[in-house]
Order: sequence, then structure tokens, then C-alpha cells
Amino acid sequence: MSPERIRILITGGTFDKEYDELTGQLYFKDSHLPEMIALGRCNLKLEVRTLMMVDSLEMTDADRKLIVEQCRKAPESRIVITHGTDTMVTTAQALAADIGGKTIVLTGAMVPYKFGSSDGLFNLGSALAFAQTLSPGVYIAMNGCYFRAERVRKNRQTGIFETAE
Amino acid sequence: MSPERIRILITGGTFDKEYDELTGQLYFKDSHLPEMIALGRCNLKLEVRTLMMVDSLEMTDADRKLIVEQCRKAPESRIVITHGTDTMVTTAQALAADIGGKTIVLTGAMVPYKFGSSDGLFNLGSALAFAQTLSPGVYIAMNGCYFRAERVRKNRQTGIFETAE
Amino acid sequence: MSPERIRILITGGTFDKEYDELTGQLYFKDSHLPEMIALGRCNLKLEVRTLMMVDSLEMTDADRKLIVEQCRKAPESRIVITHGTDTMVTTAQALAADIGGKTIVLTGAMVPYKFGSSDGLFNLGSALAFAQTLSPGVYIAMNGCYFRAERVRKNRQTGIFETAE
Amino acid sequence: MSPERIRILITGGTFDKEYDELTGQLYFKDSHLPEMIALGRCNLKLEVRTLMMVDSLEMTDADRKLIVEQCRKAPESRIVITHGTDTMVTTAQALAADIGGKTIVLTGAMVPYKFGSSDGLFNLGSALAFAQTLSPGVYIAMNGCYFRAERVRKNRQTGIFETAE
Repeated sequence: MSPERIRILITGGTFDKEYDELTGQLYFKDSHLPEMIALGRCNLKLEVRTLMMVDSLEMTDADRKLIVEQCRKAPESRIVITHGTDTMVTTAQALAADIGGKTIVLTGAMVPYKFGSSDGLFNLGSALAFAQTLSPGVYIAMNGCYFRAERVRKNRQTGIFETAE
Repeated sequence: MSPERIRILITGGTFDKEYDELTGQLYFKDSHLPEMIALGRCNLKLEVRTLMMVDSLEMTDADRKLIVEQCRKAPESRIVITHGTDTMVTTAQALAADIGGKTIVLTGAMVPYKFGSSDGLFNLGSALAFAQTLSPGVYIAMNGCYFRAERVRKNRQTGIFETAE
Repeated sequence: MSPERIRILITGGTFDKEYDELTGQLYFKDSHLPEMIALGRCNLKLEVRTLMMVDSLEMTDADRKLIVEQCRKAPESRIVITHGTDTMVTTAQALAADIGGKTIVLTGAMVPYKFGSSDGLFNLGSALAFAQTLSPGVYIAMNGCYFRAERVRKNRQTGIFETAE
Repeated sequence: MSPERIRILITGGTFDKEYDELTGQLYFKDSHLPEMIALGRCNLKLEVRTLMMVDSLEMTDADRKLIVEQCRKAPESRIVITHGTDTMVTTAQALAADIGGKTIVLTGAMVPYKFGSSDGLFNLGSALAFAQTLSPGVYIAMNGCYFRAERVRKNRQTGIFETAE
């Protein structure tokens, strides 16, 4: 029995930031998801779509509506969303309020994939695994753990996601 | 609710191979698991033990008995085992024949973690996620997928794990 | 005959920038020079000193006076200075105006050493080689080339150093 | 004044070894020199030729004759040769016995470029610098140092090149 197809929706975030060597600034160019999927020798059936390439601090209500809409109309019932960590909880809760019957897993990275010390590949591996095994609902997968959208917060001091009581 | 503690048993495999710059050979020194767990900013409760550091082609029946024994007597009911890919299926089946009531996930890498293009971090992320969510049984987590020990083989031509009918 | 001791003066620059995973900003912590020297298996006699850790756009006249002073009073006659590329030419010319009889080579990087795609290690290798072989004078070593302080500029469009007529 | 064109002759060696993920063996595919030159943002005029891709322990007298011949007939008077470290001294001495009036610099790496901890980029940077600045003769550039072909040996215990009295 082969696994169901999973949709990956790319929204940007630290995951995909690059270093501009002329300005010394971080910026977005293309997503690194295809490269990361290849590096992981990932053999899942995937449908990868880039919705936007933004820092999640700059994500608008309209952006979130687009994400919700794309999840609703996706033919797949299992979805992974790459997202900046700063407002990942906000987007997860917007999805949880609106979408039922699908397993949606948001993930991201604390350090850009292209930099030596990124957690991105680890998080992507865990997010794809959680998307295959968790029952319908909206989740955040970070730090090796998963959290329900309704009960999670990012600890700004440590950068670690934790259960919100 | 915080997740249960997971035991990680290290047995060596490509995961942990290093390059000896004097001889030009690959060899084992210390495990890179602690470094990989730190890189993944993994916040799970983990108990990490090194059982052996061997190429899985050189793993003996006695080695496999030790692995089975360690899984049986572990207080944790969720276990991840890092293992060479060549005989990962053999060890998984030995575990499946002997152990019940625990979720055991074997994983490994096609390229050593210390080399630039390793799939190790991706696989570790997925294995830890599968260990938290799959029901009791013995599984292999490779290429983003999971397989029951009873129905998996490594395709020697492609290096990809696939369902054995 | 073993080579003369070379002094390395660290002033910061892109070379040594790191990514702060909590703020998403680049910042300075410790210099990576010792790690780079080890990676290069460098067997030269070196005396490494950190003078400052600054972005070269923020380097003041007082900072430049300190650098000149440190080069003048150094017992070594061969010196390598790591420096941000934006004002590297300014510092090189300040040194050329004031110091005679020593071979001083400034180098830097377009991308931080800790990021995957840095030119830092290549530049450090070439700077240490130029410092051993060029006659007294002040030079910039970038892009595999060397330039006299009096006749070099950084092309802001391309990020490449080139001869100024 | 722009620098003279430098010829780079590729012969293989640890520099260019890769990891075969199906067999677990090291092997040669394409040279990484072009990628390394790009990473170093090298702006020198270079003419890069692959002569062979061999482990230097397997280099034959005929291979060495070819290298000598290629250096003799090259239009450039400055040449860098990438070479395995085990017999680098032998090839350097064969060149020194036969070629006059050119600056030839042999370099290599203790760890393959594609592995995380390679000294290759550092050595390439220094070799290209030495090739521009040293007077005619045959040299080995390793560990940040240069050695005349006539007075160098590789210390097998430490992997470090050193002056032979």
C-alpha cells in the first residue's frame, strides 16, 4: 500500500531566506523545498506549490485567507505548510477555525536552510511524518514535537514552541 | 501534555561514518546523534544509548540479540534505532518476531551525516515523529515513508526502501 | 628553513557574521578564524589577535588609527588583516600612508563563513600565501587576486575588487 | 595591470573524491574545481584542464610523463596542479627534473571537497596565490605553506607536509 499524496504549500519564512552578498541583507529568491526533498531522498508522492514568499511578520489577513482557501480546495487531505515561525500560531489557528476533515501540519525553521546550522531539514522530515500519521486537525511541528493549533505558543525568549495551557 | 520519553539506540551505520584523512578510509569514532539532536533544536525527552558502532553488513546474530534485548527491557514504549541500511530489514524482522506492545522505528542514512549531502537529519526528524504517532509495531522510516517490518525491502539498485508484497 | 611568523589581526566584517535565530538579524559573536585555520590544516606560525568585531561601514577613524598602530608595533613584518569589504580600501590606504617595510594583506568575505556558500576559506588561503611572498607594501587579497592599496576599488555592482587606474 | 593567465591541471586525488551512496565506496565522477573556483568568486584568468581522475597511489610513470608533457607545452608560465597527496612529492620532483622557467604549484586536500571538513578550498586559494608570486620552480602548497619540490616530504603519521633536509 503506497501512502496518499501530500500537498506542500510554501509561504516563505526563515526556511527560505538567503544572504544577498551585495547588500548584506537577507531576502527571498526561490524556495529550497525541492532541494531539501531531494536531499532527504524523499519518495512520497508530493504536490508542491508556492503561495507566497514572505517573512511571516509581514503576512496580511489577505495572505492568511489565501492559505485557508488553498487548503480547503486542495484535493489532498494531508497538507504540510512551510511558514515563518513568528506568526505560525496565528495562521494555524485561522486554519483550525475554518477547515475540518484534513490533517494540516505547519512547520518552519529557526535558521535559513542555506546556512550551515539550519534545523530546516529535521523539521521537514518530522512534518511530513506527522502529516501521514496524525488524525484530522491543524498542527504545528517544530523541535521534534507536534502541537494542536489551539494549544501552542512560541516562546520568544528561547525560540522553542511549547504547549499553551 | 508533554510527549512521552523516547529511547534512541545507536548501532552505527552510514549515519555515523567519518573520513579518516590519514588512511582515506571510512571509520567510526563517536556518534553524531547528539549533534544532530541539537541541530534539530529537538525538545523531546530523549534517552540516548550507544549499543555498538558497526557497519550493518558486519552485524552478527549476537549483535541483533543484544538489540532485541535492549528494546525489551527499555522502560520506554517508544524507541528509535539508528542502523546501517544494508541489513536494517533483517534487524527489524528480528525485533518484530520478539517484541510486542512497543513502537520501534529503525532509521539510517544513505550518506554519512558529516558529508555535505546527507539525508540523515531528514530521516531522524521523520523517525522521531513516526515513533510518537504510530501504534505498537516495528517499522522502518526511510525516504520520508514508513514501512512495517514484515513488508519492506531495500531496493539495491536504487537505494530506496519500498513495500515488499 | 621554516617560514616567518605571520600576525593575523581580526576586525570583524562579513567573515565573522552570524545569524541570530531569535531576532533574525546578523551579528558578531566570536571570530571564526581559529576554526578556519584548523580546517585549512594550516601549519604556519601565526599570532592571532582580535582588535574589534565591527561591520566595516561602522568603522571609525579611531578604529583605523588603532589598526595602523597595531601594525606598526607588531614584531612581525608580515601581517594579514580580516576586514569588511565595504571600507577595506579606505583602511588599506590609511595603512599604506603610514607604514613602511612590512607586507600587510587585507582580506575578507562576501558571504559569512558560517553560511554554506562562503568565499572566506579561499580568501584566507590566498591572503596567507600572498603575505609570505609579496614584497613590503599594503595589499588587498580578494577573488584570488592581489591589488596594491593605492590602485584598487570595490565594484559595488558586482562585489568584485578590481584595479583602479 | 591584470594578472597573467594561470593553467589549472586536474589529476584527481582526494580533492575530487565522492561518496557512492549505493556501494559506500569513494570514487571519482566530475571534478569539483569549477564549483570551487565559483565559490571563491575567483576572478583570475584561468584555463582548466582535466588530465586524469586518479588516486595518486595508482598514478603510473606514463601518467607522470603526461603531466610533465602538458606542463612543458602549456602556453602559460604559471600552472597549478591538483593531485593526490600520497605521491605528490614524486610528481613534483619529476616536474622539477624536466621543466625550467615556469612556476608550477601542486596542491591537494586531506579530505574530499564535498565532505564538510575539507581543507581543499583553503589550499586552492593558497596555491593560486603562490602561482602568481613565486619565481620559476616547482612547489608544493599545503597547510598554508609552500615547499620547493627538492626539499619536501609528507609526514605519514600526521598528514602534514614538511621540509626535508
